[in-house]
Amino acid sequence: MADSFDVTPWNVDGKVDYGILMKRFGIKPLDQELLDRIKRHTGELHPLIRRGIYFGHRELDWLLDMYEKGEKFYLYTGIAPSSDMTIGHLVPFMITLWLQQKFDADLLIQIPDEEKYLAGRRKGAELDEFHGLAKKAVLDIAALGFDPKKTRIFLDTEYSKTLYKQAVRVARKITFSTVKDALGMGNDTNIGMIFYTSMQAVPSFLKSVMEGKKVPCLIPLGVDQDVHFRVARDVIEKLGYYKPAIIHGKFLPGLSGDSKMSASKENDAIYLDDNEETVRKKINKAITGQQATAELQKKMGGNPEKCMICQYYKFLFEPDDAKLEQIFEAERNGTVLAGEHKQDLARRVNSFLDEHRKRRDAVKARIDEFMERD
Amino acid sequence: MADSFDVTPWNVDGKVDYGILMKRFGIKPLDQELLDRIKRHTGELHPLIRRGIYFGHRELDWLLDMYEKGEKFYLYTGIAPSSDMTIGHLVPFMITLWLQQKFDADLLIQIPDEEKYLAGRRKGAELDEFHGLAKKAVLDIAALGFDPKKTRIFLDTEYSKTLYKQAVRVARKITFSTVKDALGMGNDTNIGMIFYTSMQAVPSFLKSVMEGKKVPCLIPLGVDQDVHFRVARDVIEKLGYYKPAIIHGKFLPGLSGDSKMSASKENDAIYLDDNEETVRKKINKAITGQQATAELQKKMGGNPEKCMICQYYKFLFEPDDAKLEQIFEAERNGTVLAGEHKQDLARRVNSFLDEHRKRRDAVKARIDEFMERD
Repeated sequence: MADSFDVTPWNVDGKVDYGILMKRFGIKPLDQELLDRIKRHTGELHPLIRRGIYFGHRELDWLLDMYEKGEKFYLYTGIAPSSDMTIGHLVPFMITLWLQQKFDADLLIQIPDEEKYLAGRRKGAELDEFHGLAKKAVLDIAALGFDPKKTRIFLDTEYSKTLYKQAVRVARKITFSTVKDALGMGNDTNIGMIFYTSMQAVPSFLKSVMEGKKVPCLIPLGVDQDVHFRVARDVIEKLGYYKPAIIHGKFLPGLSGDSKMSASKENDAIYLDDNEETVRKKINKAITGQQATAELQKKMGGNPEKCMICQYYKFLFEPDDAKLEQIFEAERNGTVLAGEHKQDLARRVNSFLDEHRKRRDAVKARIDEFMERD
Repeated sequence: MADSFDVTPWNVDGKVDYGILMKRFGIKPLDQELLDRIKRHTGELHPLIRRGIYFGHRELDWLLDMYEKGEKFYLYTGIAPSSDMTIGHLVPFMITLWLQQKFDADLLIQIPDEEKYLAGRRKGAELDEFHGLAKKAVLDIAALGFDPKKTRIFLDTEYSKTLYKQAVRVARKITFSTVKDALGMGNDTNIGMIFYTSMQAVPSFLKSVMEGKKVPCLIPLGVDQDVHFRVARDVIEKLGYYKPAIIHGKFLPGLSGDSKMSASKENDAIYLDDNEETVRKKINKAITGQQATAELQKKMGGNPEKCMICQYYKFLFEPDDAKLEQIFEAERNGTVLAGEHKQDLARRVNSFLDEHRKRRDAVKARIDEFMERD
């Protein structure tokens, strides 16, 4: 069964086939023509784009039409933490940062601190616990280098005077039937979860509300979040705003080979607070898809697409395409053993985390420059 | 069919039998023992209570136990306007005012300016229109004489930073099944309506949240609102607060004999802004249940329970029980014709409205003393 996987905002099951997913969701490919068009404006392409990790879109062509006619867009992305942040959580923010810099775009970042509470994560945990995780997430996000003058970050529970009023306008135009089918809800779904999708829709037109005119919006997101906007895009248009454009990213796979790094499986995920030793240990246990013995590996080679080490280089830890190709080549030819790759990757990850935490410490004192609160 | 009526927060259909309704909803009667107990604290009983217009309760006995042990309660009531206010809308606020004065109780008044918008009232109307109606309603409410030091009034869209966070805690514990059965919702219900009941629950424990300790709450309400709390009371207890106690009022009937004065039927309702002439005309058209001719009426008499004029005296316009009995007696004996009663009632209503509007004008300048906003 090629189709035996499932992708929802709350769960990713099975081995994701992104080609099938595009058809299932009705997402268009980020094809060469679009890549060339982006490049005309940005001069280069971010590795996450040119390597096909950001692979799909909705109406990016329209957004670029508007941009080329002189109508600037703003960006909107977000995350709903149910744990401390992993390196996988950073991927959408990295592409968002790059887009902010290249297109000089304003950015709204929503941290829905109620979502995972409503979804019943962390059994028994109170809303305050998710609020605390959200506040930590803000530091990790700001540490990436967003421009505070162009970036507003908000937690739903701190900004709901603004958000709820607009969410009500969205909610009025979405029936239970719609969320039932699209989001897989049922009689046993709680009424907060049912309403929540309208809260997530708001930032995609909020700037238009505030400026009193239609402003185009681009949402970079992990493809599991697409469904919220499949539901909301038509509604947003009915409310008198532009439908937001979207670009869709693949998931950073888990070290154990899961399609999406799972923050709830300890050895699957690298947390931003993991220490050197932990990172080394986790990477050592990673799935590499190599042959059973060193001898066999040398003889038959491995498959970089199935090797998590190679994938981590590709997603985050080797920006140079030529060097990445060397790494992949060595994997294919069996000229490098897993242990060497693992050691090298662990060094890079630890160096990245080290840098990240320094930047996070530095941003802490001025985090209020980013925050939007009612 | 004795049972052929329906009472929901959004609709009252048919001739309401309050005895049957009590059984259907599981409401206990405000019996003589409870009336006597209230009287021990208040010295007298408000006409709306002693005349059985406030007729039912949930755990008022428990609330009085607590009060007698020295634990003060606060009051919570509200209204969701879909039109300008009618005299019928004032009834729950009148009993609330009396309770505030007699029990020296703090009071929260919620004006959910999103509810009727979500319910699709005033076809095509935007949220702003309901917000405007809510702001007008606040003046009518404050004009009744609430103590601004003990009364906080808020509109949902202006207070949702506070409300949404708590509503999420309620919503997490209510499934779609529950609102489907209790509130008559279905696949075609919008997701804002589905969520809304959790917003209405919040003020019944908000004071406990703010004071960090359990505070008893009493909700005076029109019986159509009971269902929200049938759903929420258990949830509120699970969240660690007292279940709110409730007292239930009957509806002020419409002039045309409807069980509930309908703000959307022009001749059924007396609006607080109706002028003298309009009031006279509407009351002249009221259903009196009298005989076909003056002669027959003198001979056979009428039925004060079916006479809207008599009912208006009973609800609002004759506080003296002995005088009310004279009016009822005259109606029964046929010694007074409808025209005389109508003229007298119109005079009283106009005098009340005149006074009310003066008080409303006077309160306008200091309305902010009442308002709670995020």
